[in-house]
Amino acid sequence: MPTRTGKYTLTMNNGPTILGFASVAGKKESEGPLGHLFDHCHTDTTMGEESWEKAESRLQNEAVNLALGKAGVSNTEIDCIFAGDLLNQCISSTFGLRGLDIPFLGQYGACSTMAQTLAIASVFTESGAAKQTVAVTSSHFCSAERQFRFPLEYGGQRAPTAQWTATAAGAIVIGTQQPKQGAKITVQAVTFGRIADLGIKDAANMGAAMAPAAAQTLTDFLKDTGASPQDFDLILTGDLGLVGSELMEELLEKDGIKIKPVHNDCGLLIYDRVKQDVHAGGSGCGCSASVLCSLILHQLSQGELHKVLFLATGALMSPTSSQQGESIPGIAHLVYLTA
Amino acid sequence: MPTRTGKYTLTMNNGPTILGFASVAGKKESEGPLGHLFDHCHTDTTMGEESWEKAESRLQNEAVNLALGKAGVSNTEIDCIFAGDLLNQCISSTFGLRGLDIPFLGQYGACSTMAQTLAIASVFTESGAAKQTVAVTSSHFCSAERQFRFPLEYGGQRAPTAQWTATAAGAIVIGTQQPKQGAKITVQAVTFGRIADLGIKDAANMGAAMAPAAAQTLTDFLKDTGASPQDFDLILTGDLGLVGSELMEELLEKDGIKIKPVHNDCGLLIYDRVKQDVHAGGSGCGCSASVLCSLILHQLSQGELHKVLFLATGALMSPTSSQQGESIPGIAHLVYLTA
Repeated sequence: MPTRTGKYTLTMNNGPTILGFASVAGKKESEGPLGHLFDHCHTDTTMGEESWEKAESRLQNEAVNLALGKAGVSNTEIDCIFAGDLLNQCISSTFGLRGLDIPFLGQYGACSTMAQTLAIASVFTESGAAKQTVAVTSSHFCSAERQFRFPLEYGGQRAPTAQWTATAAGAIVIGTQQPKQGAKITVQAVTFGRIADLGIKDAANMGAAMAPAAAQTLTDFLKDTGASPQDFDLILTGDLGLVGSELMEELLEKDGIKIKPVHNDCGLLIYDRVKQDVHAGGSGCGCSASVLCSLILHQLSQGELHKVLFLATGALMSPTSSQQGESIPGIAHLVYLTA
Repeated sequence: MPTRTGKYTLTMNNGPTILGFASVAGKKESEGPLGHLFDHCHTDTTMGEESWEKAESRLQNEAVNLALGKAGVSNTEIDCIFAGDLLNQCISSTFGLRGLDIPFLGQYGACSTMAQTLAIASVFTESGAAKQTVAVTSSHFCSAERQFRFPLEYGGQRAPTAQWTATAAGAIVIGTQQPKQGAKITVQAVTFGRIADLGIKDAANMGAAMAPAAAQTLTDFLKDTGASPQDFDLILTGDLGLVGSELMEELLEKDGIKIKPVHNDCGLLIYDRVKQDVHAGGSGCGCSASVLCSLILHQLSQGELHKVLFLATGALMSPTSSQQGESIPGIAHLVYLTA
């Protein structure tokens, strides 16, 4: 059973275990620093499908099937799947996973969705509500760009604070048994975030909109557990990018919390920011999912990392809310992983 | 702890309890057969807000605050809130609830979202992951119409199979203690649904698209528990409307399962279908939420109903997926309530 530690944190006493994980990515991502670590990379944006939306569904389907294969678990052995994405009505998840015949629970936390799906899946596994679950998210540069911003053909200029939505997906199979390969990686605790909105209205500066939520959730976790940033090998946010990462570090420093030596961000890891011309870094719920499900879980599995806080952040806006003059509410959920 | 019964059903051994519930509705809904049972009704579609989207956020905020008030619980005592709606990026939930400072987990199950939020909230409460939680959903005719179909000003004709998105919200506070008023209503079991897609492509006939999913989830539950339809006072689907309800009954009858004597549908209860000109009935996740949080929980609370299966259904499509020629995947989640 999960037990509450402090006000916002749930401690997992049995330690839900990562049985398998996989990442699938696009061409630009394959050319970045993590290219060699993704399980599968595509060389074109449509991936043989008729639309970018269908391509994104394909990413999610492939990530789940690869993760199931690596876990040595079949779809019929999964009690439920927690899935989400950025598209209207979460259609990448629905259409990508409809053939799997697994009880399906759609999640929406914008770019925080990988932490949300992983955290809820962990609670279900820990509490016995599910023996084995899957957490998965995806994003696609082209489907996101035309839905949230402009038609790609328009060739709009991007602000220096803007982030580049990653074409990628990541999936994790969670259970209670020993994994068939690699070190045992377990979820030790999760902290569900509260919405934080400091009034940022610039939709080309999501990092700034999400930084306060990330700082809030991390502060909640540290307060609840009595831990310090230096107790961890890595505090991994995703995806604040360059602007949001610096703002988050500043916000925390005001409260005497110094994370800089152990902090990194999925949006800064997935691309070579300068050479690949992605301005403030990567974003999209496929960004944090694919970085977690490649570099980070690989390093945990290999004993190169031992204690990691995965803190995915989301901007809970829509083009409609921005057009109506609303500010951008941020959220961040935290998952504490150990190996 | 929840325990698994059969392949798809989770039995709640402690029985998460409904501490409070509330419904808020619009003008048309207030003029329907359940008008006198809603906690609060608005007389105009914008509810004093600047847009229909903001009005929908208001519906959700009011429903939560009314339910908290009736439960005698403050927002600081809620461990997490499960919320969802039909708008792109679930903005009614985000903007409606951002001021509450409660850990927020956005859910997307289209019109099945009330069953999804209630079921997950029940699992969290049952397993000790949360002491008190809230489940809430909303929909708004005007915001849904212009997002999914046509601008209202266009005055498009509606097909006889089309349903009318309800302007309404419903919220439930779930905990483990005794409720402060009324009979004790508990969640006995939940069944999470799998996506069912028989190839229906007509977006003006959602009932037909969702009926197979409803039949599948109900069959799963009956098989898992060994129960028969006549063991229940009411099997309440939401929102299949007239067309979907008949199709579901037919589908089940082919397998020898007769639900007609105990079956009703939220989409058929909320409006006077003929007098109010709503064609095949009501729909929208605010429809099932507000019918559950008015008539049904009221009757359970008063001892007029004892055993109810709440089976909310969703069509997991988007305008984009339909424009790209996709069929409409359906889903249905079940919550078994007793008083």
